[in-house]
Amino acid sequence: MSLDTLIEKIIEKQNPTVAGLDPKLEYIPRFLREESYAKYGKTLEGAADAVLRFNCALIDELAPIVPAIKPQCAYYEALGWPGMRALAETMDYARERGLFVITDGKRNDIGTTMEAYANAHLGKTDVDGERLTPFAGDALTVNAYLGSDGIKPLLGLCKQEDKGIFVLVKTSNPSSGELQDQQLKNGKSVYYQMGVMCEQWGELLPGAYVYSGVGAVVGATYPEQLRELRIEFPHTFFLVPGYGAQGGGADDVAPAFDASGLGAVINASRSILCAWQKENAPEQEFAKAAAREAVRMRDAITTRIGRIG
Amino acid sequence: MSLDTLIEKIIEKQNPTVAGLDPKLEYIPRFLREESYAKYGKTLEGAADAVLRFNCALIDELAPIVPAIKPQCAYYEALGWPGMRALAETMDYARERGLFVITDGKRNDIGTTMEAYANAHLGKTDVDGERLTPFAGDALTVNAYLGSDGIKPLLGLCKQEDKGIFVLVKTSNPSSGELQDQQLKNGKSVYYQMGVMCEQWGELLPGAYVYSGVGAVVGATYPEQLRELRIEFPHTFFLVPGYGAQGGGADDVAPAFDASGLGAVINASRSILCAWQKENAPEQEFAKAAAREAVRMRDAITTRIGRIG
Repeated sequence: MSLDTLIEKIIEKQNPTVAGLDPKLEYIPRFLREESYAKYGKTLEGAADAVLRFNCALIDELAPIVPAIKPQCAYYEALGWPGMRALAETMDYARERGLFVITDGKRNDIGTTMEAYANAHLGKTDVDGERLTPFAGDALTVNAYLGSDGIKPLLGLCKQEDKGIFVLVKTSNPSSGELQDQQLKNGKSVYYQMGVMCEQWGELLPGAYVYSGVGAVVGATYPEQLRELRIEFPHTFFLVPGYGAQGGGADDVAPAFDASGLGAVINASRSILCAWQKENAPEQEFAKAAAREAVRMRDAITTRIGRIG
Repeated sequence: MSLDTLIEKIIEKQNPTVAGLDPKLEYIPRFLREESYAKYGKTLEGAADAVLRFNCALIDELAPIVPAIKPQCAYYEALGWPGMRALAETMDYARERGLFVITDGKRNDIGTTMEAYANAHLGKTDVDGERLTPFAGDALTVNAYLGSDGIKPLLGLCKQEDKGIFVLVKTSNPSSGELQDQQLKNGKSVYYQMGVMCEQWGELLPGAYVYSGVGAVVGATYPEQLRELRIEFPHTFFLVPGYGAQGGGADDVAPAFDASGLGAVINASRSILCAWQKENAPEQEFAKAAAREAVRMRDAITTRIGRIG
């Protein structure tokens, strides 16, 4: 259960990558934006319509190649409630095509408030007896600065609904060390302590493979920490951002995998979404260019790590 | 600038409290829910309509009493995109009535993604030349586990648009210590280190009072830490949850204030929203009961801390 579904899709497609759907408006070809503005004006509705059509075209081309997509909530929230509607519809569209959906929300709170986030993104909301689905994700990224009170409300739901989470452990950004690399009295770092907590929470969500339903976000830009964490936290599956545009390559992410080529899923967003710009392809070819880049990324990584599973 | 507007409203109303709008469906009187279901069915739209009408009635009664409201995003997201529309409309309604709006989203990410969150909640999104407002908050709660890369994208916008942020420092929940109380090599705690960073970020957003535009979330359930942090971080304004239903009282929150009665705003959610239930008042009186509880809370705190400003 939990992240098993993701692992199975990775093995089936022999591809340990996820396409990040971070649809900044400037990533979307002009013709597509203009079509949406013609219908809805230059409004949040118009922009959200362009995002949804961009995403669906990408999903059509990416679905045979990648096991998962990862929409980043921020870009949908930036388009207000129409953006959130486009997020929900993108997720439904992707799941109907067999993709695993990781909602990148980095949500965090405690108790019943965290339960509300869990229901929002991984479960159902009870409206006086009707159980309705707000956003149909398979896994959610979360921030555990608040401790177990912020994570436990997710675990029961994950068990029941067969879902997973990814906890921020060591992020890919230059300043991630300001807090995460601080040394504790026991000689370990803050991010190491977070990894310890992931392993503990994971005991409550064992999977069919060695990995639990509690994964960790560990950046591709810190290969040394990736190697250390892969060894120290053998039951924690990694979601690795920072590949491609952020600077990480196949060699940088290789330490995230175990000897079976499992243990991690590598995200790329901009390099896939903007492949048509980089290739200087006609803008109508944006989705096919994204698929070509997804294949290149898959091949670069699998050449390095070998057969998966 | 920044949190000055909040401080001015606190002085004007002689009330250092904020009403948390965390509209769980069971908090909403049945007659109101039934009216909304009659129009939209037991759907996310129906539930969101009930939430909006509940909030607007509360805001009408609370606006003369409290300086600010704090909607908790989780409860709106749990109603999908219709919930997010109710959030945006609640915020507009509150601001039109002169209330300061603190969006409790605990958002966090880095770089351009954090910029998207900043635009979503405190700024404007550029849709090919049209600058549109997704969610019109005055301040946003954020989680700084990712370091400066997650905060700096907010500061420029806060300066330009006269907005503020509240960074999670020491939260009110029982397990907050698992990470936040860990001792660093220098003998200080993780939450103290976070407070140090708040003071540093705050230097970029000086206010007209001694407080910067970078505030901190510090729970009412840890009065000792409140006292320590008030002294150590004299330029950081506190948002204090945990009053009322979570167990904190006027004595517990008093250490959050400086000698002028400034330095903090105390949040209560359930005790205000559910005052009609606790008072055994007729359900039609829910908003007036909320106002009575808001007055009781204001009086309990101001009796303890004296005249503000």
